[in-house]
Amino acid sequence: MHTITGKTRVFGILADPIHHVKTPQRINEWLHARRIDAVMVPLQVAPPGLPAVAQGLRSIDTLGGVVVTVPHKIPMLALCDRLTPQARRIGAVNVVRREADGRLTGTMLDGEGFVAGLRRAGIEPQGRRAYLAGAGGAGRAIAFALAQAGVSALCIANRSPGKAQALAECIGREFPRVHASIGYGDPSGCELVVNSTSLGMREDDPLPLDATRLSAAQTVAEVIMEPAETALLRLARERGCRVHPGAPMLAAQVELMARFMGAAVREDV
Amino acid sequence: MHTITGKTRVFGILADPIHHVKTPQRINEWLHARRIDAVMVPLQVAPPGLPAVAQGLRSIDTLGGVVVTVPHKIPMLALCDRLTPQARRIGAVNVVRREADGRLTGTMLDGEGFVAGLRRAGIEPQGRRAYLAGAGGAGRAIAFALAQAGVSALCIANRSPGKAQALAECIGREFPRVHASIGYGDPSGCELVVNSTSLGMREDDPLPLDATRLSAAQTVAEVIMEPAETALLRLARERGCRVHPGAPMLAAQVELMARFMGAAVREDV
Repeated sequence: MHTITGKTRVFGILADPIHHVKTPQRINEWLHARRIDAVMVPLQVAPPGLPAVAQGLRSIDTLGGVVVTVPHKIPMLALCDRLTPQARRIGAVNVVRREADGRLTGTMLDGEGFVAGLRRAGIEPQGRRAYLAGAGGAGRAIAFALAQAGVSALCIANRSPGKAQALAECIGREFPRVHASIGYGDPSGCELVVNSTSLGMREDDPLPLDATRLSAAQTVAEVIMEPAETALLRLARERGCRVHPGAPMLAAQVELMARFMGAAVREDV
Repeated sequence: MHTITGKTRVFGILADPIHHVKTPQRINEWLHARRIDAVMVPLQVAPPGLPAVAQGLRSIDTLGGVVVTVPHKIPMLALCDRLTPQARRIGAVNVVRREADGRLTGTMLDGEGFVAGLRRAGIEPQGRRAYLAGAGGAGRAIAFALAQAGVSALCIANRSPGKAQALAECIGREFPRVHASIGYGDPSGCELVVNSTSLGMREDDPLPLDATRLSAAQTVAEVIMEPAETALLRLARERGCRVHPGAPMLAAQVELMARFMGAAVREDV
């Protein structure tokens, strides 16, 4: 870390609990490597305090923005003054930029980060058929990002199929060239298979899809970071699939988050 | 600087403007040298935003507290939930601790920092007669701290004598053993001479007292940090006085501030 002075730009991460977050380490490494005079600090805020904290952040001129994570992604949406289209259609924010006039602009980068992580690993979604397990916050973000990235088809599965149906309809409306459908656990026929559920974080979790239907031509990707190899990824690897772990999604987002909050202005302009 | 994680305690400094502050550098050096997992960041807040920021700070659980400087020292007093006796009698705060329940406790350490800086330099105020130029915020803080430190007499001079009079009366009431009086620019007869005004920051400032009355038996102390040698200190040095610059007052306060905000709990408890 470089020396913090009165000129240092400040970023925060809003979370509760917060001890486990890895974003400050990653963002600060990223800033340090680029010699950007800015620093991210952890801001633990319990849900009842969020509106007062958001209001206070508006008046801190040295604040560039905040990363927003559990449990604030959805409540923070309503506290923003402006939203990007991604945030609005997903219904949640994970990064908020403080504009020079104090207004807060929220966006949702989970999907874009996921796709950027894939591409960095040399996996191009464009033209592929994708199977997506999960239609929650992360699933919605990834569905839109995959559609934006040009998948030819998107098959969405969810424990409650109504949410998968609603998401598939949204995708179909906004991206008419994407063949959106509902899936029921069978990922065969899709070159790209994505788990966006939390199934796999605990050892006794059921699988998020029928892994016996996986074959060597497929790429299987995770959003889960801990464990680095989920049961799904292990089975996929054993079946000869290419596997893509959860960590690159955060790694790619670090840069997107920093840039959205204005951290790279000096380099870029 | 060490790595900032989700467990790092956060301190702020509230100021406007903020680019010139030196407290983050000093506090962070102090924390780093003691391997305390905490960091201070600059929080620039314009006066109209102060109440909202104070309210927001209450809900940030990772926040240990904030150092408060120009122009917030007086307005912040009213936004605290509790005040130390020093803050209450001086009518201003320069450090605010966030208690575990979110309440804000304000104190004023300028005077204590000044006396601690003197003592570190081997200058003991106890039993001395002191001359104090200035009865503003810093002057009030130093007057009470010198009285607390056991000066035998305190002669207070101020451009508007009413403020000197009021301060001398306060000191006389609270510290009956201190002979408090009003001065008019002549520091002779006092072993310790202190400038607490801002006269000396600019080259064309008039002197804060009649320097022709200084003699070699006296110690002359400053609160001004820039320039390191004010016109008063230069003249005092030329007359053979011992001189004490402004920097030690901040250096000594760094530790007092950090400890008040709870930074040293792990070492101390």
